[in-house]
Amino acid sequence: MNKIIDGKKISLERKEELIKKVNELKSKLALVVISVGSNEASKVYVHQKEKMALEIGYNFLNLHFDNILEDDLINEIDKLNKDKKITGIIVQLPLPVNLNKDRILNSINPLKDVDGLTNNNLIKLIKKEESLLPCTPKGIMTLFDYYNVDFIGKNVVIVGRSELVGLPLFHLLLNKNATVTLCHSKTKDLSHYTKEADILISAVGKKDLITRDMIKENSILIDVGINRYENKLYGDINSECIDISNLMTPVPGGVGPMTVISLMENVYLANSLQMRK
Amino acid sequence: MNKIIDGKKISLERKEELIKKVNELKSKLALVVISVGSNEASKVYVHQKEKMALEIGYNFLNLHFDNILEDDLINEIDKLNKDKKITGIIVQLPLPVNLNKDRILNSINPLKDVDGLTNNNLIKLIKKEESLLPCTPKGIMTLFDYYNVDFIGKNVVIVGRSELVGLPLFHLLLNKNATVTLCHSKTKDLSHYTKEADILISAVGKKDLITRDMIKENSILIDVGINRYENKLYGDINSECIDISNLMTPVPGGVGPMTVISLMENVYLANSLQMRK
Repeated sequence: MNKIIDGKKISLERKEELIKKVNELKSKLALVVISVGSNEASKVYVHQKEKMALEIGYNFLNLHFDNILEDDLINEIDKLNKDKKITGIIVQLPLPVNLNKDRILNSINPLKDVDGLTNNNLIKLIKKEESLLPCTPKGIMTLFDYYNVDFIGKNVVIVGRSELVGLPLFHLLLNKNATVTLCHSKTKDLSHYTKEADILISAVGKKDLITRDMIKENSILIDVGINRYENKLYGDINSECIDISNLMTPVPGGVGPMTVISLMENVYLANSLQMRK
Repeated sequence: MNKIIDGKKISLERKEELIKKVNELKSKLALVVISVGSNEASKVYVHQKEKMALEIGYNFLNLHFDNILEDDLINEIDKLNKDKKITGIIVQLPLPVNLNKDRILNSINPLKDVDGLTNNNLIKLIKKEESLLPCTPKGIMTLFDYYNVDFIGKNVVIVGRSELVGLPLFHLLLNKNATVTLCHSKTKDLSHYTKEADILISAVGKKDLITRDMIKENSILIDVGINRYENKLYGDINSECIDISNLMTPVPGGVGPMTVISLMENVYLANSLQMRK
């Protein structure tokens, strides 16, 4: 068995399936990405989303503001919330510091919140209700599904406690009956925990944070880190870990492609949830 | 140093302090407990709360229904939400099974939710915003404060993932920078985790779940279990564990009294939060 989890291949398979399902819909779905300011990385990400959305067969709109007042932005979101032609709404992060991220994100209709970042969707995730999941955790859960990973009795260690990745993953895996430890920047002796992990997920952004001596044999390694070094991309987990692991996601080509396809799947799911309403 | 954490004594100290603060208020605060049906244990708990509330100097009202429709109950709660003479509202659990607990609890104004069980207060807890905490976790955090427990770099293991105790404690301790593992009924080899715990919290309800061979020397043991056996009360943690622990809560007289005083402190805090609004 190939130990490398080919996220690119799996995401392409799911893309084909999604295109088929989208083709069967009576009307065209639409994704809106709201962006504010002039973050260069954001422009690249927005363009990636546009490309993929069009390939899937969605309408795409980038609503861009060089700058905008918080209340005006929330008014714009409210218009999109009410617009029946709009299926999904994303606010591209980071936002300029003068805007209250939490307040703005939570003004999105939870049924259109395809990034899964509203409090409403977080509560549903925690309480095991059907919801729009944040895209990276959703993509990782899709990989686990793909490999039929069983979590009961498993020791899962997550490194990194961000609202986008670590925290939602903690609840998703707990809800699958894994025993989960959440490690972070203030954890002392990280290897004490990682050495015991049947499944290790690192979402920190620190090259070589996890090395071969820090992992358990035959474990599953999920690398969410993206670190640029001498013009190459690296994850958090040193690539030599593959030698003793059972399964491992590479960087690039592991979790990244799964995140993008998960967003597209969320647009489709958002439409289903809105229909049921 | 005495290794037994005397929750009764600490709760009495806090009660004296609270009575002083309540005496300084211009108007009398009021706690309402809503109960439905004829659960015998609930009657005892409601009576305990009444007794303590009156001792603190609060008005107390038990709004009891032999049976009531869900929408009617929510209407009653809404009246209390709007009533300026009412400071705190509790719905005594368990509710009859025909009533949707989640919907009813979330109809309580979050600023009057002195049991800290609304989604709104859970999100605030997770995001480190000031909120009304669930009473048992709040009481445990008060004990940690009392002993100036430092969490940074500490390995904390919580056994039990209930919405009332385990889950909120997980987030509270994570937010204090502990490294936290959440164990539960599906955890395999529980002692593997408990043996490494600098701080161990058990909230399961199983006598002798934790025995002396399962704990780390000099650890802090918090026992939330309440188990009745041959007319005596026991916790989850075998009392012999005291011999090698640093600090340990007894059952009874540990976490229990801290839960009750925490509810009373929440009524006072609810009033402050409402004043600020």
